[in-house]
Amino acid sequence: MQAGRVLGVDPGLNITGYGVLEVSPGGPRLIEAGIVRGGDRGEIARRVEAIWEGVTEVIAAFEPTALALEALYAHYKHPRTALLMGHARGVICLAGAQAGIPVVSYSATQVKRILTGSGRADKGQVQRAIQRELGLAQLPQPADVADALAVALCHYYLQGRRQPTANR
Amino acid sequence: MQAGRVLGVDPGLNITGYGVLEVSPGGPRLIEAGIVRGGDRGEIARRVEAIWEGVTEVIAAFEPTALALEALYAHYKHPRTALLMGHARGVICLAGAQAGIPVVSYSATQVKRILTGSGRADKGQVQRAIQRELGLAQLPQPADVADALAVALCHYYLQGRRQPTANR
Repeated sequence: MQAGRVLGVDPGLNITGYGVLEVSPGGPRLIEAGIVRGGDRGEIARRVEAIWEGVTEVIAAFEPTALALEALYAHYKHPRTALLMGHARGVICLAGAQAGIPVVSYSATQVKRILTGSGRADKGQVQRAIQRELGLAQLPQPADVADALAVALCHYYLQGRRQPTANR
Repeated sequence: MQAGRVLGVDPGLNITGYGVLEVSPGGPRLIEAGIVRGGDRGEIARRVEAIWEGVTEVIAAFEPTALALEALYAHYKHPRTALLMGHARGVICLAGAQAGIPVVSYSATQVKRILTGSGRADKGQVQRAIQRELGLAQLPQPADVADALAVALCHYYLQGRRQPTANR
C-alpha cells in the first residue's frame, strides 16, 4: 500500500472545492477540506491567479503525494461554463505539475461506481458514501467539497486496490 | 499615446502562438513572434506547465506592458477542443496576472474589423493586413502566430485610438 496523501479538487472559476485525505492502513482519513474562491466577477486573469495561489498554498501546507480530478468529458450542456471551468482546471493542473506530484483523473461514472457500486448514483448516495467512508458526523457540504472528496476517495481506492466498506 | 509593448497570444494546448509588437509613434513594429509547444500528447498537467513556462519566459524576455487575447465566445463547434483550449488560456492569463500586466481580450469579429474594416474578413485578408501593417516581407505564418499578431495589432489600434493604414 502506497503511503501518502491525496488531494482531490473540484475545479470551478468561481468556487474550487478541495479535500485532503490521508492514506493509512486503517482506512482513509480526512485531513482538511475547503474551498478556494476565484470570485464570481472581475478579470479572468485575477480569478485564475486566486485559484492557482489557493491550490498552491494547500499543496504547500498539506504536502499531498497526488492530485486527483474528475476527467474531462466530451459533452457539456453549457459550453461557456465548460470553457471557464477549463481555465480553472488548467491552473490547478499547473499547480500540481509545479509541485512535482502526479495529476490523475477519473471519470464521473468511475467515481460514482467506486464509491457506491453504481455509475449512476445520485448526489445523495455519493454524499452518504463519503460520510460513511470518512466517518463524518454530517454529510459533506458544499457540493464543491463533496465532489472533491469523492474523487480523492476514488483515487484512494483505485491506487491501493482497496474496496469501500459498502462494496467489500 | 501609451508607450510600451503588447504581447498577443493565441492559446492552444498543443501550439500556442505569440507575437510582441512595439508601440511607437512611427507605427507598430514587430519585435518577436513564435510558438510555445505544449505537445500533442502526454499529461495535460505537463502540457500546461510547458505553456506557462514558455509564456512566462516570453514576458520576462520582452517585458510587454499588456497581454492581448481573443475573447471567449459562447458557441464552439467542438466542446472538447474548447475545453482543452481553456486549460491553455487559463495558464496564459495566469502568467500575465503574475507579471502584473493587464490581460485584455477582443472578440474575433472586433479583431477582423479593426484590421480589415470587415468583421467577416477571411483568413487571407487578415494575414495581408498584418503583413502590410507590420511591413513584413511575407505573410505571417503559421496560423497560430498570425492570430496572435492580429489580436496584438487590434490592441495596438484600440488602445491608442490609432487607425490601421487601410482604414485611415
